[in-house]
Amino acid sequence: MADLSLTRELVTTADTKIVLLVMDGLGGLPREPGGLTELEFAKTPNLDKLARESMIGLSIPISNGVAPGSGPGHLALFGYDPVKALIGRGVLESVGIGLELTPDDVAARGNFCTVDDKLLITDRRAGRIPTEKCIELVNLLKPIKLPGVEIIVEAVQDYRFALIFRGKSLSDRLTETDPQKTGLAPLPVKALDPEASLTADLANAWIANAREVLKDKRPANMVTLRGWAKEPGLPKFADLYKLRSAAIAVYPMYKGLASLAGMTLVQGLHNLDEEVEALKTHWANYDFFFFHFKYADSRGEDGNFEAKAAEIEKVDAILPRVLELKPDVLIVTGDHSTPAVWKAHSWHPVPTLLYAPGLTRRNDVSGFGETECLRGALGQFQATDLMPMALAYARRMNKFGA
Amino acid sequence: MADLSLTRELVTTADTKIVLLVMDGLGGLPREPGGLTELEFAKTPNLDKLARESMIGLSIPISNGVAPGSGPGHLALFGYDPVKALIGRGVLESVGIGLELTPDDVAARGNFCTVDDKLLITDRRAGRIPTEKCIELVNLLKPIKLPGVEIIVEAVQDYRFALIFRGKSLSDRLTETDPQKTGLAPLPVKALDPEASLTADLANAWIANAREVLKDKRPANMVTLRGWAKEPGLPKFADLYKLRSAAIAVYPMYKGLASLAGMTLVQGLHNLDEEVEALKTHWANYDFFFFHFKYADSRGEDGNFEAKAAEIEKVDAILPRVLELKPDVLIVTGDHSTPAVWKAHSWHPVPTLLYAPGLTRRNDVSGFGETECLRGALGQFQATDLMPMALAYARRMNKFGA
Repeated sequence: MADLSLTRELVTTADTKIVLLVMDGLGGLPREPGGLTELEFAKTPNLDKLARESMIGLSIPISNGVAPGSGPGHLALFGYDPVKALIGRGVLESVGIGLELTPDDVAARGNFCTVDDKLLITDRRAGRIPTEKCIELVNLLKPIKLPGVEIIVEAVQDYRFALIFRGKSLSDRLTETDPQKTGLAPLPVKALDPEASLTADLANAWIANAREVLKDKRPANMVTLRGWAKEPGLPKFADLYKLRSAAIAVYPMYKGLASLAGMTLVQGLHNLDEEVEALKTHWANYDFFFFHFKYADSRGEDGNFEAKAAEIEKVDAILPRVLELKPDVLIVTGDHSTPAVWKAHSWHPVPTLLYAPGLTRRNDVSGFGETECLRGALGQFQATDLMPMALAYARRMNKFGA
Repeated sequence: MADLSLTRELVTTADTKIVLLVMDGLGGLPREPGGLTELEFAKTPNLDKLARESMIGLSIPISNGVAPGSGPGHLALFGYDPVKALIGRGVLESVGIGLELTPDDVAARGNFCTVDDKLLITDRRAGRIPTEKCIELVNLLKPIKLPGVEIIVEAVQDYRFALIFRGKSLSDRLTETDPQKTGLAPLPVKALDPEASLTADLANAWIANAREVLKDKRPANMVTLRGWAKEPGLPKFADLYKLRSAAIAVYPMYKGLASLAGMTLVQGLHNLDEEVEALKTHWANYDFFFFHFKYADSRGEDGNFEAKAAEIEKVDAILPRVLELKPDVLIVTGDHSTPAVWKAHSWHPVPTLLYAPGLTRRNDVSGFGETECLRGALGQFQATDLMPMALAYARRMNKFGA
């Protein structure tokens, strides 16, 4: 695995551009033995042509057999050790909506839910209330005050919100309150360490106040809290890689992950077309672009093989517009596999393409897909090796040793 | 990556011979997309035939994206962790000309250079003076004495010499004096740690004396010093691998690296033919032969694709003479890639061939080259795995555990 301190030592600057195009959940599985995966089934003439001019291979996000969440999957792509750099969902949700965290903060992801009069949960997502309703309810929660701590609460999307406690001696060693099924009551927050008991008390007090505010509302008359986490303090792309980096993403979580890596977030993007336009608009101002596309994963989680292939085709269609910008290095990969037949993130290695004109070896491959990647020049490699490779192919790494 | 302590624990002796044939900078890149590399372009009937009877694959010298210098590249081939076992140029130059270092020594690489009357460098290599001139000038520097320290200075080649200070409490935490470009004055030696200030004073005093000796000479009227280093204390091949080992190399640096591994240096070799003869002559007396061929790297650094291919063809031509000796294991590899289109060491994995009659699996490959190596039985592997593999295929490794 790449050694981050070695990369940091060797990295230098150059007038080159790197694009990391992440199709979330790209890797797939065939529907029948010997069949094609989603990527292989999709009509991807642009990716296939590019694969023949690039080096392809398979990225192992964490290790064989380990299916990563979005956090570890992206951290590995960004070059961080995904096992050491654990980031809780609370931090992801918070930074994803543009909240800046301090080392004094503990963040949680909140869900609005529905409880009956015995306080048993009847809907863990409160009927998936729309974002406008979420904002309205969050505004009612904002006045809640507790001694010795600043409280920040902001709507995220649908039934989700972010909660931050800011104060001295707070800990994220807390249990979650979502019982993960209906018919059960929300759990109390418990301290996992003695030092976390103050924070647990604050959390339980906040929940009691929130219930009081919400008790007559329908369908969202209660909250659950999970993903307690502190800001992880990752080294930032500017220091670590000497890169001016920008994140082009629609979804809050991926913007959040990028912000933890120190990338500038391009705001206000709603779809793939706007993402490509943003890449063009900001091309001159950054060296590195993290370009995230969500829907391959979403349709994989839905179990919809053909819809996932169709999403991959949409990315294929915008590829010429990316190549027009003449990136020195273009990597196309995923943060993990989300096979439609599995309907969830999986542990399968992820098809990866590295385009770097003039510096790549020949693949004898016909196109971009899981089976062709087995024969590609990149072989199977750790996802954490991608950033050092991107930097090397972008002429941004010095020689190691005399 | 191979665990050296595990190898040390498992290694045993056997009446078998291992040859590690290193073509420096072997790996390459195509000149045009989809084209052949230098090795693929070269006519190598003997290597191609051997590849079909061997296992081939690609060696990763350090990690993906990291281009190694000759030191780390060779240390990895010898099985040492190339990131931990850093060796300065001063040590390499010194041991390369047969100087034996002690733990009390600090060594530097010296260059003769030309300065104008304002002491600004006009030629960092003093017109690349011939070795005879270098010897003559070094003889003038030998009488320089300084208190409390023994001084050893020896010519290396062309404009290069080695300087060793031998004494108590010396440190290699010193800055270099070569400003790396002309028009600037040589820099003073500065201590990077407080404990290095004595050595820095000695170095500056020696330089002042050397300048006094050289001031009326032309073109070499000044010196620069760099690559300050102490002997790294690597475990030696005899202890580590139970191997009687010999190094067959022409260039000082590679002899130096071999001597740090405890190999016996075969002296007085000038070309490939003499190297093969030396292999024959010493065949009975050693178990392991490090056989180094420099010019693939040299022509790669020149950017001369066809000349690099021609050098590879020269090695191909001597291969039957190596095989006549019936080695139990023959490895053909490089310490790194030096693609002619890149004109420098690169990070690309290195084609590797492991020949061990009777113990290798079938490759479906047509010959020896980067693309064929992708399909070879060795796969892509860390260079540090080669020594344990060599030992195992040479029947020199016990089973691990009951």
